[in-house]
Amino acid sequence: MHILILGAAGMLGRKLTTAITAGALPYTRLTLADVVAPPAIPGATSLALNLTDPTAPATLLQHRPDLIFHLAAIVSGEAEADLAKGYATNLDATRALLDAIAAIPDYLPKLIFASSLAVFGAPFPKVIPDDFHLTPRTSYGAQKAMTELLLSDHSRRGLLDGIAIRLPTICIRPGAPNRAASGFYSSILREPLNGQPAILPVSDTLRHWFASPRAATGFLLHAAGLDTTTFGPSRALTMPGLSASVAEMIEALRRTAGQSAADLIQHTPDPTIAAIVESWAEAFEATTARALGFKAESSFDDILRIYLEDDRPTPSI
Amino acid sequence: MHILILGAAGMLGRKLTTAITAGALPYTRLTLADVVAPPAIPGATSLALNLTDPTAPATLLQHRPDLIFHLAAIVSGEAEADLAKGYATNLDATRALLDAIAAIPDYLPKLIFASSLAVFGAPFPKVIPDDFHLTPRTSYGAQKAMTELLLSDHSRRGLLDGIAIRLPTICIRPGAPNRAASGFYSSILREPLNGQPAILPVSDTLRHWFASPRAATGFLLHAAGLDTTTFGPSRALTMPGLSASVAEMIEALRRTAGQSAADLIQHTPDPTIAAIVESWAEAFEATTARALGFKAESSFDDILRIYLEDDRPTPSI
Repeated sequence: MHILILGAAGMLGRKLTTAITAGALPYTRLTLADVVAPPAIPGATSLALNLTDPTAPATLLQHRPDLIFHLAAIVSGEAEADLAKGYATNLDATRALLDAIAAIPDYLPKLIFASSLAVFGAPFPKVIPDDFHLTPRTSYGAQKAMTELLLSDHSRRGLLDGIAIRLPTICIRPGAPNRAASGFYSSILREPLNGQPAILPVSDTLRHWFASPRAATGFLLHAAGLDTTTFGPSRALTMPGLSASVAEMIEALRRTAGQSAADLIQHTPDPTIAAIVESWAEAFEATTARALGFKAESSFDDILRIYLEDDRPTPSI
Repeated sequence: MHILILGAAGMLGRKLTTAITAGALPYTRLTLADVVAPPAIPGATSLALNLTDPTAPATLLQHRPDLIFHLAAIVSGEAEADLAKGYATNLDATRALLDAIAAIPDYLPKLIFASSLAVFGAPFPKVIPDDFHLTPRTSYGAQKAMTELLLSDHSRRGLLDGIAIRLPTICIRPGAPNRAASGFYSSILREPLNGQPAILPVSDTLRHWFASPRAATGFLLHAAGLDTTTFGPSRALTMPGLSASVAEMIEALRRTAGQSAADLIQHTPDPTIAAIVESWAEAFEATTARALGFKAESSFDDILRIYLEDDRPTPSI
């Protein structure tokens, strides 16, 4: 099996690559692609290419990958700031790839597309059902929703075998703090676990939907093995996750790393960030995905433990 | 006010043009466009152009129409038969128009887009709520759903003021029988009203969702006058209609034109047509649209009367 990972240089792409090379999926060929060349891996081909380049689909499909993980996108903030770039990258580039796949005779690859819960928009019920309507409130969400519809249509027509998985907010993201509106959700745990201070810009009553990087990698791998013949007209699946308030996250931090870690969090309200994240969903049913065997964490203690096991920087003594 | 009608040569476009020139909306300039030049009207400009032509948006927007009715599309069957043509016409051409509007400074036209209930797909509840999820089962439906998302996104960003209206099946369509799967719904009434035989290819227990051409024209005109500032994140509205079974339609025909008219319907089952139309929706709540003042017929007797008033060919004696 030839596996292709688009967006392989990103956080999730790198974790997926590591899992696959460690034996999570059998392969005879592995191609890693991103706008910057993904780190070289023995036995894998690393490609630097921009998906919006008209020649990209031909390059990517040259050796007929059987399984394609498509994690490449520009993020919500950039898609909102640059309308043309957002549609070009998050919709048109994927469409060009799907059209190129459709044009190859006798070729029906499986394509796992990283979609987003941003396809949904407030007002929300407390727990959002799988068949909640699509009312994105960002261009990023609109682009993901449109791509889901395209993927479902091409799959229905037998032009490829697609699955779109809507990922929860990934927590704890490894690495340095970033300026994404969601960044504090990882920061308030990651920094104190590493002895550093962190800023909480919102009320601790705020509730949201999370999965660890390990769970998100597991979703992608699990989707790759699914039989889609029982799927209905939509190929989009809302992934399971853990609904937690900021207070519950801090309680888990206290249990894991003590009061001194929790004391490193300083509450400095930021109305701009609060206005964005307060409109985000609190919880999803994810009934279909759970029935299909997708699994997320059931406590924030697990999410903290996974960060410590997988991602905490080795202390430099 | 400069009004532009795209798809002006079609059945609905011609009725809308007639209503506007009769005074339904005030205008200082009227532009009629379609792939074939719409019939010349005194005081109106008639344009033959293909919306998929890259120069079409510049031509259409040259004189900054304030109100655009966009009724141009290729139909469901053709969009299913020709994937590339369907996406090019039903999605890309509209996107090019929206992008061209967005590129003009200080220009915020109102755009009324004819969408379709094909954005929804079975399985359905008995009566479908406004917030039913989007699971199209045709490429046509996927294209309309994607365009709705794009229209909502551009409207949210203040790039135009869009409304997508999802039209019921139009009945009674004037003119000759056509080969659309839905054609019999008009044919079984229109032909007997004109003394001609008609074929019913399905069971008379089949139920579906209808509005007259006059009601559909009224939806477009009503949308043009709506204040969208109270709209939520979606600019798509499911239009009201009349839910009726084939048996109820035939009963109304009997009341209007007698048993001899009803006797002109011959039941000749066609499993191909039955398979298509049996998956169609039976009824919609249309709560939001009704609250906004959109009105459809409440009995099939009215739908028959409207055909006789508006569309029955003058008998040639």
